[in-house]
Amino acid sequence: MDRRSFLKNAGIGVGATAAASTLAAPAIAQGTKEMVIVSTWPRDMPGLGISAQRLAARIGELTEGRINVQYFAAGERVGAFDSFDEVASGNAQGYIGADYYWKGKHPAWAYFTAVPFGLTYAEFDAWIKYGGGQELWDELADGFGLKNFNAGNTGVQMGGWFNKEIETPDDLKGLKMRIPGLGGDVMAKLGASPVSLPGGQIYENLVSGAVDATEWVGPYNDYFMKFYEAAKYYYYPGFHEPGSALALGMNKSWFTSLSKTDQAIIEAACNEENARQMAETNAENGRYLDKLTKEHGVVLKEFSDEVYEAFGEASEEVFEETRAHSDLAGRVHDSFANARSQIGRWMLLADTGYTVKRNRALGITI
Amino acid sequence: MDRRSFLKNAGIGVGATAAASTLAAPAIAQGTKEMVIVSTWPRDMPGLGISAQRLAARIGELTEGRINVQYFAAGERVGAFDSFDEVASGNAQGYIGADYYWKGKHPAWAYFTAVPFGLTYAEFDAWIKYGGGQELWDELADGFGLKNFNAGNTGVQMGGWFNKEIETPDDLKGLKMRIPGLGGDVMAKLGASPVSLPGGQIYENLVSGAVDATEWVGPYNDYFMKFYEAAKYYYYPGFHEPGSALALGMNKSWFTSLSKTDQAIIEAACNEENARQMAETNAENGRYLDKLTKEHGVVLKEFSDEVYEAFGEASEEVFEETRAHSDLAGRVHDSFANARSQIGRWMLLADTGYTVKRNRALGITI
Repeated sequence: MDRRSFLKNAGIGVGATAAASTLAAPAIAQGTKEMVIVSTWPRDMPGLGISAQRLAARIGELTEGRINVQYFAAGERVGAFDSFDEVASGNAQGYIGADYYWKGKHPAWAYFTAVPFGLTYAEFDAWIKYGGGQELWDELADGFGLKNFNAGNTGVQMGGWFNKEIETPDDLKGLKMRIPGLGGDVMAKLGASPVSLPGGQIYENLVSGAVDATEWVGPYNDYFMKFYEAAKYYYYPGFHEPGSALALGMNKSWFTSLSKTDQAIIEAACNEENARQMAETNAENGRYLDKLTKEHGVVLKEFSDEVYEAFGEASEEVFEETRAHSDLAGRVHDSFANARSQIGRWMLLADTGYTVKRNRALGITI
Repeated sequence: MDRRSFLKNAGIGVGATAAASTLAAPAIAQGTKEMVIVSTWPRDMPGLGISAQRLAARIGELTEGRINVQYFAAGERVGAFDSFDEVASGNAQGYIGADYYWKGKHPAWAYFTAVPFGLTYAEFDAWIKYGGGQELWDELADGFGLKNFNAGNTGVQMGGWFNKEIETPDDLKGLKMRIPGLGGDVMAKLGASPVSLPGGQIYENLVSGAVDATEWVGPYNDYFMKFYEAAKYYYYPGFHEPGSALALGMNKSWFTSLSKTDQAIIEAACNEENARQMAETNAENGRYLDKLTKEHGVVLKEFSDEVYEAFGEASEEVFEETRAHSDLAGRVHDSFANARSQIGRWMLLADTGYTVKRNRALGITI
């Protein structure tokens, strides 16, 4: 709708026919657009940083430089958590990051990255593209002068590294665990003491015993953190981030000033990078899971049903607080919850049900 | 590599700087390229046909018409199964379809759509993009003068509609079932009588009892076939097509004649449509699964472990025949099997393991 009304107002036709009849006005004469992208990820960070840089480069490539992208990793222009304001204010044109960082501005932002007991990659993609999710994301973003596309996903996170076995919810009481965000809120409801620590400080705190446990991402990213040297049990599946979706958030005035073609190219580049990052993460997690268990003796442990039910109940309490915030937060939650029930049910017959039975028959075990 | 060598040989720079210095040679003057796309799907067919048409339109949109796409549904220019030759010969520039249709030309083509006991969408995407799959697909396609990208996926198929319960492998003996391709070969090994029937003839054969069972796609597509009027049991999960990947296959000489930018745009459009079709299918399957069970009393039945193990063993026999065909077929199989083990193991901790535990805790049941 935005694109159509922009074209109507601007009176510009950019289809093939129009282009053919305006030979005197080549693409370049429409003006190169500068696009400063700031990011919440350090430069060259495996997975997240590499993905953001790949997307930034792809926008320039696909537009033949009509959009001239300058990419700044976290701290190179503004700090990671200043990315939102930098773009909303128009100082920069886009950010690449995780929208749950902005939940202090509106709690509904969390739903567009990951919430505890939330959606997997395939479920999220179905919700965003064909379940009403993008429309709600647009409504939320519009209130801040932004236009956001899903532009990455790092999939289901592992439950974390623990020094003792977690067999009942009681084992969580008093546990000092590095787990930020809503996942931490859930842990606090169960009697644990969640702490936030930046990535670079987790290892030393785990070794010294200052924290008893930590989550991070998954086998690929966790491998390089060497947590296996300091904690024996690697629990699955994580409940707190079951499919962390990343975003390209753009200044909406800037985005709507682009040609219809360039708007569509940015959308396509985001859709492409979303799938690429997920594919890369799954491939690498498969490889590094093998390394962790075969080369480093990591012990994989499944959370018991009892512990998982406790996570689920505490997550619903966290949701209630979010829903009560505003009409929009309530509508986002309800749309999300409907997708979770409906697509989540289908998954039991499809990807989930199939891989369980295929792997059992073939002897592919954890 | 192909792109780089093309640019080097052609001496064309298409980056931003080059474009800025060639104001007198606007994009249109580089020449509009005609792209005739033929398809294996009927026009406006829900899911498959709509997706193919969306991709064809998107290529024109994202290139601002530099690539002028003419799309022909199955039968509008050539028959569905003549699509391959039409493109390999250069009569058309691209086809959109399922590459397992060409397994008579080389059995390895089947791996790039779906094989029994194969990969799910997420696993396939990881294999193709980051597990060596695309390189093997390129090697196979190159032998026929083609360049192929993954451009759609319809996910895990249901096991099919049955008039009697299938509790042991013995129940498959003598069963007349509409199930084409390698899935049919597996069924034959288990004593069933697989038959091929075009979509429009299945319903009448099921009603008359000429066949005892049929598979088709999933809840969304099957709903409109009204199979629920003729068969009571809807079995899951299907073993025969656990993630049917579709392709845009292009005449390679034509593809390499495009600018680097236009090659990249086609790749991006394919990656985007791949995710879009999967998202649409999952969203619709969730909705129509609810309709089938709540409005039409369809009885969902899970294949027993014993039956699944029989499917698995028979599938491995089918694979052995494929592997023995040639060195390339063997390498494709081994790369596929490695991805299935490694990424399939990771799925047990990730999407699969998580949805099982989440759904159980929340009471989301089949």
